Amino acid sequence: MSYALESKVQSSELLSREEFDAAIRAVGAERYHDKHPFHKMLHGGDLNKDQVGAWALNRYCYQSAVPRKDAALMSRVHDNDLRREWMHRIVDHDGLGDEPGGIERWLVLTDGLGLDRDYVMSMRGALPATRFAVEAYVRFVREEPLVVAVASSLTELFAPKIHKERISGMLENYDFIDDKVMAYFKRRLNQAPRDADFALEYIKDHAKNRDEQEACIDAVRFKCNVLWVQLDALYHAYVDGHVPPGAYRPGERNV
Amino acid sequence: MSYALESKVQSSELLSREEFDAAIRAVGAERYHDKHPFHKMLHGGDLNKDQVGAWALNRYCYQSAVPRKDAALMSRVHDNDLRREWMHRIVDHDGLGDEPGGIERWLVLTDGLGLDRDYVMSMRGALPATRFAVEAYVRFVREEPLVVAVASSLTELFAPKIHKERISGMLENYDFIDDKVMAYFKRRLNQAPRDADFALEYIKDHAKNRDEQEACIDAVRFKCNVLWVQLDALYHAYVDGHVPPGAYRPGERNV
Repeated sequence: MSYALESKVQSSELLSREEFDAAIRAVGAERYHDKHPFHKMLHGGDLNKDQVGAWALNRYCYQSAVPRKDAALMSRVHDNDLRREWMHRIVDHDGLGDEPGGIERWLVLTDGLGLDRDYVMSMRGALPATRFAVEAYVRFVREEPLVVAVASSLTELFAPKIHKERISGMLENYDFIDDKVMAYFKRRLNQAPRDADFALEYIKDHAKNRDEQEACIDAVRFKCNVLWVQLDALYHAYVDGHVPPGAYRPGERNV
Repeated sequence: MSYALESKVQSSELLSREEFDAAIRAVGAERYHDKHPFHKMLHGGDLNKDQVGAWALNRYCYQSAVPRKDAALMSRVHDNDLRREWMHRIVDHDGLGDEPGGIERWLVLTDGLGLDRDYVMSMRGALPATRFAVEAYVRFVREEPLVVAVASSLTELFAPKIHKERISGMLENYDFIDDKVMAYFKRRLNQAPRDADFALEYIKDHAKNRDEQEACIDAVRFKCNVLWVQLDALYHAYVDGHVPPGAYRPGERNV
């Protein structure tokens, strides 16, 4: 952060659009989950297939919650144009008509990792910390002021970089990963930036005072926490080996 | 209602699918808003253009709330298939991509009735009773058990009949009504039955005991009330002439 921005951060003055933008991006630079050791292991080829499976199985909870949180947001929007824009997100994840969505593409990944689809979708084997974090996100979007709820989506600003690293890292490092199972991330390379650009412009236009701007910046921190908690829980369970009761245990009978 | 159904209604026994179906339809026969005197006047050519305008302006509140209530429902649904099915409703009303939705078609109607589009969309001239009823519906769908929330959509079972009457009655009786402005209703002739059939099968499958079945039947009564209240308010204001403070006044400057 520049000195000029640092000093303004101390005041209660409205941030300019550029300063607001920089403050949002600074959150990503500080705490987006691409900095988490589990991600570095995932992309660097340091996990085994079971550990990658545990990640994909847990992350399914997040994927499948995303359309619910987007619908929660839409349920609060009186502006037809904003709803039409936001609806693309649900279509991207749930699909529409004959077109499969991101959730289906995620299940292609878990299939490829040898996980039973019904078991994945039941979420019975997911870590409780994952479930709690994901549902906290849905509640946040349902309950916080609309502009703040929109801001919580802005981790998508940082997603294309992690997806690119993931695609190349995982394809290169794991013989059980191929192009087909990475389809989810390839699609998100185009979807996420479009959505993030829209949401960023929206909060710049609609955060009316410094308090609302700060609440938007905090929303991105909150969302980074939602993502980070999931990787902490995975690391503790599947790298350090402290799998909690009821959670997925590779190599055992999981029902 | 048959004698057999009457007597079963007294017990706490689970209704068969056929009995449950009949009980839902009986609510429509008793209290769907096609029985309201305002609708009889609307379809029979007994209203003037201003009164039809008041109806269309108020009904806009309902139209524009429908995608919010559908998104509220989707935000609670963990089943991807149910969300995909339900999403059609939002697309039908909001449109998607280049395709306009029902709300746009409704505004073509209010345009045709000589109402200012910004004024209609602001909802400033709508009757408070309309706004309260419509928001009660959104809250109902957000808060009631999912199967009951789904049941509240089932007034759509009764909609094609009223839409057919409306299209023929209004085209025949009003020189200010033409095919173009009736596009909304023509489209709903196909959309509503598809949605209603799905929702009816859903509640038959998911209402697990008699209490849940009764709550579903009550949900249809509730929804009929939401619709009826709007016509009572229109009748009182624009037929009997008791326009409340702040509401649309034909012939005056409405801003």
